[in-house]
Amino acid sequence: MLVTDLLNIRYLTGFTGSNAALLVHAADEAGSERRTVFCTDGRYQTQAGEQVPDLELLIDRGSASALARRIESGVAQHRRVGFESGHVTVDGWDALAGAAPSAELVRTPGLVEQLRLFKDEAEVEALRAACAAADRALAELLEQGGLRPGRTELEVARDLEARMLDNGAAGPSFDTIVAAGANSAVPHHRPDGTVLANGDFVKMDFGALVDGYHSDMTRTVVLGSPAEWQREIYELVAASQAAGREAVRVDADVRTVDSVARKVITDAGYGERFLHGLGHGVGLQIHEAPALSQRGDGTIGAGMAVTVEPGVYLPGRGGVRIEDTLIVRPSTPELLTLTTKELVAI
Amino acid sequence: MLVTDLLNIRYLTGFTGSNAALLVHAADEAGSERRTVFCTDGRYQTQAGEQVPDLELLIDRGSASALARRIESGVAQHRRVGFESGHVTVDGWDALAGAAPSAELVRTPGLVEQLRLFKDEAEVEALRAACAAADRALAELLEQGGLRPGRTELEVARDLEARMLDNGAAGPSFDTIVAAGANSAVPHHRPDGTVLANGDFVKMDFGALVDGYHSDMTRTVVLGSPAEWQREIYELVAASQAAGREAVRVDADVRTVDSVARKVITDAGYGERFLHGLGHGVGLQIHEAPALSQRGDGTIGAGMAVTVEPGVYLPGRGGVRIEDTLIVRPSTPELLTLTTKELVAI
Repeated sequence: MLVTDLLNIRYLTGFTGSNAALLVHAADEAGSERRTVFCTDGRYQTQAGEQVPDLELLIDRGSASALARRIESGVAQHRRVGFESGHVTVDGWDALAGAAPSAELVRTPGLVEQLRLFKDEAEVEALRAACAAADRALAELLEQGGLRPGRTELEVARDLEARMLDNGAAGPSFDTIVAAGANSAVPHHRPDGTVLANGDFVKMDFGALVDGYHSDMTRTVVLGSPAEWQREIYELVAASQAAGREAVRVDADVRTVDSVARKVITDAGYGERFLHGLGHGVGLQIHEAPALSQRGDGTIGAGMAVTVEPGVYLPGRGGVRIEDTLIVRPSTPELLTLTTKELVAI
Repeated sequence: MLVTDLLNIRYLTGFTGSNAALLVHAADEAGSERRTVFCTDGRYQTQAGEQVPDLELLIDRGSASALARRIESGVAQHRRVGFESGHVTVDGWDALAGAAPSAELVRTPGLVEQLRLFKDEAEVEALRAACAAADRALAELLEQGGLRPGRTELEVARDLEARMLDNGAAGPSFDTIVAAGANSAVPHHRPDGTVLANGDFVKMDFGALVDGYHSDMTRTVVLGSPAEWQREIYELVAASQAAGREAVRVDADVRTVDSVARKVITDAGYGERFLHGLGHGVGLQIHEAPALSQRGDGTIGAGMAVTVEPGVYLPGRGGVRIEDTLIVRPSTPELLTLTTKELVAI
């Protein structure tokens, strides 16, 4: 099988460069591991030697085509060769077919992604560190008065991102969302010059990147004394989120997990205001399988890393989202994002 | 034609969200513009109304498939429909064919990219602002003593990135490279805890992102008094870079531009130490067409934005790269990165 998706290659080999392809053989073949070939370009020769010392190294700028020519020249001539049809473009496929005309190219979508669903302890350690960097960044922001009327959303977002870096992140895991007042009713508001004001909900959705792994957390706080409607929807979302976390159990259907959390909000009459799925897998990508939503498919398994993030959004007034990153365990899930989910009034 | 590459969609419509597809009709058809359909998902309904007010809006999470169904349901049934075969995956193509079985799907790779080669004045304005943010960041860093023995590469990189944000950048345009001492001989070194020392070359390759457009600049300075070998390779690279800029003329072959700059280095006996192409196009992507290298193809045209960035790398000792971003003009190119290319000794 020809692996060309860079995240899948990173997962399988540890290589972090921007150009690579990997040719692996079926595990039941003699010497299958020994025969794996890793290809990258000259810029990464040293790095490949350090990160992928155990595989045969081929240096070629057109890495996928080079491995296809390698297939044709004998390693796997006239063989069935899987390719990542969810990653290879139509033009890329034409190029592979041209370079390995005797091979039967077989669509093998999502094979490595299936392995990536289940995090091993080294991966969990990276996710834990990424979640801790975000937790600490928010704690420092609050302790040092960084969230107060008069600052702009953009200033708060940059402050959070800088503090994540100070706490060991290589960068934010996605564009930080800080949404104040009416903006908090926009699920994916981009922070701008909006000035934080007393009485605002401030919704912060952010995460850190550590060793290639992404954390994802949302907290919503109130500046000043919470109004009655703010308490109401906050407590509702918190109850939905707790129910969702509780439903994240081995063998649970992903749609059921979504339904359990959604029912809490629907029963309170806000079903129309919960505009998105409950959560998603997280790992080398910020959004990966499984989708915890009505559009999802399959069941929860031990070792999966998922978010649980219900929200209620009242246009023109404000919104609340509360999100954790969890690792599915045989019993209750392990919570990686540790910041309190009590309503914080600042 | 179905446009699915998000950068191409941004280029054609101004939409900046993360999910969209666009169905356009041949310009010679009556009402071709009026019949354009833009599809995105519910998260972006408001944003699409603001950014793409002039097109028919379809809301559907699976935007490309939704437009394919639209094709099948009548807008373009039994018609030839171009698709971006350099962007659509093999699985995505299967899905399109399944959703629009009567359409003849035709590979149309790189059509919008051809338009994107030539920057209009609004695009040049964004590139100019992105280059200015990088220029100012470096000027501030130097003025305020941010580049000095004892700091680490990572500290300098973060400092540069923060200063670009202060100067109007939405973010860095790629991972900032700061490479000190022997690390400067590694073309794409990632900044780490290496401490800057007196006598080091410090190579900084960085850029800013403004309105989606990327700037790209490299400068190499010396800490302390330059050694003879440092002066020698610095002046050599500077001469090569000047020759390369001079060769960036309308109708010049891209390989010739590379050759002209490369010859300066080869003639001095360092040809083997210039490890990469001379430059690349820059715009909505940090690397886009044209490639100014022996692997490139085609000629230079007015309005293209390109980098010119020769380098000489002496393993274990140090290296120099000097890079500008330029706009090709009918006469001499317009220089967008204005920081001096004299050898700066700090």
